[in-house]
Amino acid sequence: MQHLSPRQARLNARANQTIATTSGMSLGYAQANIVIVPKEYALDFYRFCTLHPKACPLLYVSEAGETSAASLGEDIDIRTDLHGYHIIRNGTAELESSSIADYWQDDFVTFYIGCSFSFEESLMSHGINMPHITAGQNVPMYLTDRELTPAGVFSGHLVVSMRALASRDVVKAVQITSSMHRVHGAPVHIGDPTQIGIHNLEAPEFGDPPALTDGMLPTFWACGVTTQQAIYNSKIPIAITHAPGKMLVTDIVNADLHFS
Amino acid sequence: MQHLSPRQARLNARANQTIATTSGMSLGYAQANIVIVPKEYALDFYRFCTLHPKACPLLYVSEAGETSAASLGEDIDIRTDLHGYHIIRNGTAELESSSIADYWQDDFVTFYIGCSFSFEESLMSHGINMPHITAGQNVPMYLTDRELTPAGVFSGHLVVSMRALASRDVVKAVQITSSMHRVHGAPVHIGDPTQIGIHNLEAPEFGDPPALTDGMLPTFWACGVTTQQAIYNSKIPIAITHAPGKMLVTDIVNADLHFS
Repeated sequence: MQHLSPRQARLNARANQTIATTSGMSLGYAQANIVIVPKEYALDFYRFCTLHPKACPLLYVSEAGETSAASLGEDIDIRTDLHGYHIIRNGTAELESSSIADYWQDDFVTFYIGCSFSFEESLMSHGINMPHITAGQNVPMYLTDRELTPAGVFSGHLVVSMRALASRDVVKAVQITSSMHRVHGAPVHIGDPTQIGIHNLEAPEFGDPPALTDGMLPTFWACGVTTQQAIYNSKIPIAITHAPGKMLVTDIVNADLHFS
Repeated sequence: MQHLSPRQARLNARANQTIATTSGMSLGYAQANIVIVPKEYALDFYRFCTLHPKACPLLYVSEAGETSAASLGEDIDIRTDLHGYHIIRNGTAELESSSIADYWQDDFVTFYIGCSFSFEESLMSHGINMPHITAGQNVPMYLTDRELTPAGVFSGHLVVSMRALASRDVVKAVQITSSMHRVHGAPVHIGDPTQIGIHNLEAPEFGDPPALTDGMLPTFWACGVTTQQAIYNSKIPIAITHAPGKMLVTDIVNADLHFS
């Protein structure tokens, strides 16, 4: 799976191949979180992203009705090229689907949002252990007490992902991710979780509980789930997101994200 | 002028105080390029910016009709707080005005775009000479042969600004500006201008001709004038930009732009 070309990964999704997650797929290439909203809500959602660039870094935004994304990859069809979608109506996830061809509207605007898989790969390539990947789990994610500036109907609190790092790796992790601002950039917090309103690291709101070890420093990055929470909070009539862990595999080379 | 608070700088503009440029005003604070378009064109202009983040880094985007910009400064009124505006109709600059209160439309969306003044200040604070500032001139700007990906009616070629740097300063200049991605980021080209379609450095399309000295390396950054050219090219019925050199002075601390 790690050696699949990005295009083949998308074709597999298009053919409804079942997988648990795209994590580890097509190593070396960036994946994207997806949020689709009707044009009526697109400007405000766009503004929400610009207000919170660490949580919502944009790789591409489509025009209304556009199903391709030429700057992200050849022959992308956003209606079929994810392994799973959530259809969300009035703030509630109505169902998961492997295609949204039947739900597509000509006024849909698609937001392609940078994903932490890119910086995780860069950290690992520099010898930094990612505990959740070693354990075969999802990264733990937490709702913080940092209230975000609303944009129209979109509001919420910052969601962060946490990786417990060896102290010797923390400086390097900051340096590496600082240059990757299109995939969440530098950490937003290092150390005491209570300072950002997290009172129990063992009970993340999303993902799997981490295996914590003495002497590790919890290191928090802004997380794309922030945008999904803003979608739920908005209660807009319809929106579509990727299903958790099932991202769009793009043709963007991860290493290039250090220089964009 | 360099010690004016940002708020006082804006109040002076609001009182129609006449100045030649905001360059050097309120040192330590970021200034913003301004582009205002009707909501009908806002999504496409926004997409053009996302496609070209080095030329069009966004500090804030308003909702339709919003005249303030709370995340950029206290009590901003974009209709009056610039020292000069260009009103552009059908792709032609119709007039320059010191206020746009009489032209305001409730469907106007305002784009606040990062400005090179921020990184110039950072470069100078690290001992790097800015030749055009020493000479009391405008930075030279050039139309390159790099065609930009269009978004709706917005298209054009990349415009760059050029600073001739001593070779010993070039590495440092790349390092400093790499972390300032919200104000154009790292250079897009260093050295031979013909490689980006510039055939006569002494004849810039915008700004003043540079004083060139042997042994200096021409260093090119993506320039906010790119967005203005896209506005002219679009020939949309109405748009408003800042008049050249007359930016919005914001409350954003320049030094913070290294970490955003």
